[in-house]
Amino acid sequence: MGIKVKRIEKDIEVINSFTSTPGKGITRFTFSEEYMKAREYVIEELSRMGARISTSIGGNLRGRLEGREAHGPSVMTGSHIDSVFQGGRFDGVAGVVSALEVGRVISEERLGHRHPIDLVVFAEEEGSRFGSIMIGSRAWLGKLGEEDLRRMKDRNGISYLQAMESSGLKIDDPDVLKPGAVKAMIELHIEQSVVLENGGFQVGVVEGINGIKQFLVNLRGVANHAGATPMGLRHDALQGAARIISSVEDIAARELGRNTVATVGIVHCEPGQANVIPGKVEFTVDIRDLDPKRLEEAVKRISAEIEKTCNDRGLTAEVTPRSETPPVALSKDIVTLIEEAAASRKTKYLRMPSGALHDSSILPEVTEVGMIFVPSREGRSHCPEEFTELKDLAAGAEILLESVLKLAQ
Amino acid sequence: MGIKVKRIEKDIEVINSFTSTPGKGITRFTFSEEYMKAREYVIEELSRMGARISTSIGGNLRGRLEGREAHGPSVMTGSHIDSVFQGGRFDGVAGVVSALEVGRVISEERLGHRHPIDLVVFAEEEGSRFGSIMIGSRAWLGKLGEEDLRRMKDRNGISYLQAMESSGLKIDDPDVLKPGAVKAMIELHIEQSVVLENGGFQVGVVEGINGIKQFLVNLRGVANHAGATPMGLRHDALQGAARIISSVEDIAARELGRNTVATVGIVHCEPGQANVIPGKVEFTVDIRDLDPKRLEEAVKRISAEIEKTCNDRGLTAEVTPRSETPPVALSKDIVTLIEEAAASRKTKYLRMPSGALHDSSILPEVTEVGMIFVPSREGRSHCPEEFTELKDLAAGAEILLESVLKLAQ
Repeated sequence: MGIKVKRIEKDIEVINSFTSTPGKGITRFTFSEEYMKAREYVIEELSRMGARISTSIGGNLRGRLEGREAHGPSVMTGSHIDSVFQGGRFDGVAGVVSALEVGRVISEERLGHRHPIDLVVFAEEEGSRFGSIMIGSRAWLGKLGEEDLRRMKDRNGISYLQAMESSGLKIDDPDVLKPGAVKAMIELHIEQSVVLENGGFQVGVVEGINGIKQFLVNLRGVANHAGATPMGLRHDALQGAARIISSVEDIAARELGRNTVATVGIVHCEPGQANVIPGKVEFTVDIRDLDPKRLEEAVKRISAEIEKTCNDRGLTAEVTPRSETPPVALSKDIVTLIEEAAASRKTKYLRMPSGALHDSSILPEVTEVGMIFVPSREGRSHCPEEFTELKDLAAGAEILLESVLKLAQ
Repeated sequence: MGIKVKRIEKDIEVINSFTSTPGKGITRFTFSEEYMKAREYVIEELSRMGARISTSIGGNLRGRLEGREAHGPSVMTGSHIDSVFQGGRFDGVAGVVSALEVGRVISEERLGHRHPIDLVVFAEEEGSRFGSIMIGSRAWLGKLGEEDLRRMKDRNGISYLQAMESSGLKIDDPDVLKPGAVKAMIELHIEQSVVLENGGFQVGVVEGINGIKQFLVNLRGVANHAGATPMGLRHDALQGAARIISSVEDIAARELGRNTVATVGIVHCEPGQANVIPGKVEFTVDIRDLDPKRLEEAVKRISAEIEKTCNDRGLTAEVTPRSETPPVALSKDIVTLIEEAAASRKTKYLRMPSGALHDSSILPEVTEVGMIFVPSREGRSHCPEEFTELKDLAAGAEILLESVLKLAQ
């Protein structure tokens, strides 16, 4: 009875047998031959459990287990099966195979539910083929139209619409997903970091998805001879940058609290010669937090540090925004539901934010959303070393099953 | 009587009329058409003052004003006329035109001297054409042989020897410059930095040429998702690098004393994405000092900082030496001589090290060496903006004249 690890293991094996880079990780681009074969396997599993199959605008797959009420809003779970280039076996797949196993258990044990249960595979979550993330879910929500899907092209100039047609995919559910159509959505996903593993947690209960503020800092000093210019007469842009970069860590790690993260990932230094004092340094700052106020505060403090450093060192700075994504709060009710399910099983869990974006980041626009994280070994993700223990995945699936069933009552 | 600014001005004008990048600074590569025309002008000036012209191995030009003693060691002065790509009008040229003016004054005023006076132009000081600095002077000292000059090639595959031959240059002085051949050498050069200008000094008396230790630091941490990895679980190579880079300045500027300079001029960061924690950072460290012990101490302290940072942050470091040039002490007697000449004219002067290398860096192997610096406006050098006031150049030339004459008695 209940979740069967063996079946989850088989799903993972079969889906990951479809890769265009065998031996070098999983490469399964949306609407590719490998993608369609993996999708076909999911459809077979859905059909076997008696789900009604449909394909929505954007190419998302839905298998519906009807509830006692034919026309009520559904409870949705699922994730994606497209991958990055030479990625791992679990990102997206973990959520799809958990959804399949939840569906199989409900179906074979005839677990009654009032609301329909939708098991879904969103298309092009990673953006690896068409260069933009979450295309399938955004199209389903009506945020991307047919024109957009015609405009978005892969490296070979094939548009999203063309690729979808060539793959043989037919859209038989042309409706935009509107508020009211879905009662709740829960996605299970691998954590893609080391928080759960390091803390010995088996499950993460996601409270929200971090907002992001990203900007570019362009520091200018004076390039000069490294031998002939005494220390006191320098305006070294890199020395200024080193102070600001250090402060980015200090502000996030020591001043603002446990959830803020801030990263400098790109640094370019000009003229870039060992014997010339750098006259120009460009670097990015990426700040993420669940709390929009703390996000704002981090930007304020880093900006103050930039100003102070420039004043102290005779440098000038130009700060250019790169991108901004507001934080997304997930449903408090679903957080509680997932916590209760974990607690009743004595599964060690942690409330946490999601640092990465998922389809679940935009679904709050139309429904209540929750996410369950399972641990990633050494935090590795988007690489062949990506790994999650089957027992952790099964623990997550059990919590998913209980939560979905409660929501569907 | 004495140094005439107008003649120095004319020399500078004529020599700098020969550039392969007119309107975009001075480009006069060794043995190029422009170089040979400028060299021809110098030869004409030398001939006019009655100097005996010869070309040494390596292609260096020498004009000798005979002294009362035909065979004694000579007193040498001069510099170079080759330039970097789109460089300035004074680097090297300042020392050549001062030498010409010194020669003209001695010749026309029949200022008697016991030792011969050699007015020289060293070939390929900058290394802009053949990729290695001070080729002419090193060949003259026997540190580079014919084989080396055949091996060293420009971008078009033309060797140093071939280029010398094609330019029509004939070597009529095949002797290696041995100890005893030259009693003393004084080079006047632009400072290429801001020390003299900032302090209001008209002349710098160079005590020595800084030694250089240059090494490459390769820091490795763990690349990870910038959103999903909490601050406490990171091994961010760039954050480690920022601390070490800061310490490079602190150690040179605040711990070791006035003459040490240390620079990080190159930084590369991998994978170099705004949303990925840097897993690898490579940067150079360039340390210069006149005192070999302080140079050693700077390396020791920076190495300790690297080790501490790696321990604190779970990083590893690999340190690879890039180059090492020992400090060169110039002649104390000549320093005193130059100081006396400056003091007697009430010229405001400063004792200082040379941060950059010059032909004078290797001449101490065969003779007593001194250097006179003149100010560079805003410290600019190796660029079209390079500028030295004629009055400063003339002040330097007067001190050069007095020093050369005293040494030649």
